Amino acid sequence: MDYLSREDAAKRDSADPLKPKRAEFDLPDGAIYLDGNSLGPPPRRAPARPEQTARNEWRNGLIRSWNDAGWIDLPKRCGGKIAKLIGVDPTDVIVADSVSVNLFKLAAALLAKHPGALAVEAGEFPTDGYILEGLSRLTGAPLHVLPPDEPGALSRHNIRVLIKSAVHYKTAAIADMAAWEAEAAKAGVSIIWDLSHAAGVIALDLDATGAKYAAGCGYKFLNGGPGAPAYIYVNGSVSKELHQPLSGWMGHAAPFEFSASYRPAPGVSRFACGTPPILSLSALDAALDVFDGADMASLEDKAQFLGDVFLARALSHGLETVSPGIGERRGGHVSFNHENAYEIVQALIGRGAIGDFRAPNLMRFGFSPLFLSYEEVWRAGAILKDVIDSGAYRDPAYARRNAVT
Amino acid sequence: MDYLSREDAAKRDSADPLKPKRAEFDLPDGAIYLDGNSLGPPPRRAPARPEQTARNEWRNGLIRSWNDAGWIDLPKRCGGKIAKLIGVDPTDVIVADSVSVNLFKLAAALLAKHPGALAVEAGEFPTDGYILEGLSRLTGAPLHVLPPDEPGALSRHNIRVLIKSAVHYKTAAIADMAAWEAEAAKAGVSIIWDLSHAAGVIALDLDATGAKYAAGCGYKFLNGGPGAPAYIYVNGSVSKELHQPLSGWMGHAAPFEFSASYRPAPGVSRFACGTPPILSLSALDAALDVFDGADMASLEDKAQFLGDVFLARALSHGLETVSPGIGERRGGHVSFNHENAYEIVQALIGRGAIGDFRAPNLMRFGFSPLFLSYEEVWRAGAILKDVIDSGAYRDPAYARRNAVT
Repeated sequence: MDYLSREDAAKRDSADPLKPKRAEFDLPDGAIYLDGNSLGPPPRRAPARPEQTARNEWRNGLIRSWNDAGWIDLPKRCGGKIAKLIGVDPTDVIVADSVSVNLFKLAAALLAKHPGALAVEAGEFPTDGYILEGLSRLTGAPLHVLPPDEPGALSRHNIRVLIKSAVHYKTAAIADMAAWEAEAAKAGVSIIWDLSHAAGVIALDLDATGAKYAAGCGYKFLNGGPGAPAYIYVNGSVSKELHQPLSGWMGHAAPFEFSASYRPAPGVSRFACGTPPILSLSALDAALDVFDGADMASLEDKAQFLGDVFLARALSHGLETVSPGIGERRGGHVSFNHENAYEIVQALIGRGAIGDFRAPNLMRFGFSPLFLSYEEVWRAGAILKDVIDSGAYRDPAYARRNAVT
Repeated sequence: MDYLSREDAAKRDSADPLKPKRAEFDLPDGAIYLDGNSLGPPPRRAPARPEQTARNEWRNGLIRSWNDAGWIDLPKRCGGKIAKLIGVDPTDVIVADSVSVNLFKLAAALLAKHPGALAVEAGEFPTDGYILEGLSRLTGAPLHVLPPDEPGALSRHNIRVLIKSAVHYKTAAIADMAAWEAEAAKAGVSIIWDLSHAAGVIALDLDATGAKYAAGCGYKFLNGGPGAPAYIYVNGSVSKELHQPLSGWMGHAAPFEFSASYRPAPGVSRFACGTPPILSLSALDAALDVFDGADMASLEDKAQFLGDVFLARALSHGLETVSPGIGERRGGHVSFNHENAYEIVQALIGRGAIGDFRAPNLMRFGFSPLFLSYEEVWRAGAILKDVIDSGAYRDPAYARRNAVT
């Protein structure tokens, strides 16, 4: 089935209010990049910024650039930009560390305030569970693996802290955050939202749902560069009650007093720990400006429509999806299970359509609405048809080797 | 007192085997940079590397660069380079996170194996104590602040874990690591060495001293760039017995299997946590190559001699040092207490000699042997003489404002 003709795709591109955003990205010729959900491509201004940071601020300003070039404020400044994308107060987000480290800080701080059990859903992004395993072993707090998509399960086992993705890394299913928060309030559970696959591609309004704690990564739909630092959100109404154990000097109320005892900074800044990696952070800071003037609801709508276009083609050629179907709300990617998932992804890459493979049998395709055109996704669908119908993926050139994020 | 005449300084420069290293650094004209102990300046190859990483590997390779450009191996590759500077097996060091985060991982893993009390010395670099405060609050393990320089204190309070700097951030005193390790072995204590002010400037041989655990930063004498990622060392003989609680996916034995349960990687790799910031990491990786062919004993000797030159001048003009004296072994910096420390540092900066100030009353001057010449340090001494003798630092232009790392 052709969900959209090539001509209609071209018409949509002409009328696309997001079209100018494409020119803000630097993409290699000939590639249709369907993996912005794993590593966003460089906005043009992103590589230029760490160059400026290194060749001017580091080289000429040297140590003085911590003040003069504003390095010391970058975690907050970047956090303020991300806050706008997720619907929270700009002073309640900072950039720091990695998602894994930030999830640990939040879970440990919440557990200290509300002792009880930790929980994660079965099939959650692995690191979310791994981090809770580590915290459980260290503190003795039990860890429960809950059945997926069952908010009612929160009332079991004296659960106090749950880590949950807002958009599932495999299926792209979007959690009903308000419903989960309502259930969590009844059960006395704090939910830490992992926004890694959600921020920058769906319209999030954490404030409206009552969500108070979140972390997410900077290198997927935020396009901040490989391994870009992560962010952490704590609602301003509760941050002063929380004491996170990774109490490094950057989270101190006055780091440069060099006082003997730790005194947490007010607000979310107490969730900072060590000195942040400025070159990577400056690239993220620049990349985030691509979102200026882009409305998150429009981004979500376009991402979903692009996903529908690809999904329709895939379904009509016999693939089985694990994602919400055509016309259903989902995140920015669509996934399929196939015993030859690895080989198909390789064959698609060989033809210029870059998606990704996730063990054991999953192929994922991301539809970043900032830089993808309708026509490109139409073409990606045509390439998929060709690879599937021809059996081209059975070529030994595409046989499995190691795959990485 | 002139410890060294200008002519003799010039002669030393001519004969200096490290002289060619200076050309590998990109330093601004007219500055004598005495703050490489706080933020090392850029080796020429360091800014070029993240540019290449962003403009080629990120832009063209996109997600494939995790494998094709070797991003996934950077933490180990960088770690191997650092291992050579600290005298340990190249496979026992990885680069990851910040010093603060790495100290937490080590202390938590050791505490889990050997329950008891935590300890830090009075006057230690603040974050080292702050991190133990956080761990103590989370686990209930007592934290003791020990009198400085008293290895015998390890036998008190059922102490099991001590964090200690190899070179003190204020005084530059060098710990007798072998003596501390011998005392620790008797008392059943594990020492985590903070190498931040030691690595890259003194000859370290951790293996010979019996030291098994260490962390350190990448942005001081290693010149890795602002906030460069830190490293972590765990002796290969004991890593398999340690389970650190920040068990993120990058420390998993097979991160891309996406298995439901955490299974730690063999060796020090189990101390990795989240996805590393590749742009910052690539700058560090490039910067470390400046050490190729440089002998650590020669670096330490030159640093100490440069410190002696500056120290002699300062003492003869009435300053009081808190550092080991002339001819005594010390790290790469020299510090002075002065009620006008802030203003003096500002006046020196105004004349091109860049040192740093540490609250409340400390001025520090670093003598990075890779890029400083003897003649420069002679000139810095002459500038110091001028500022002190003339009272020029009392100019209101140098009055105190906020100071940063």
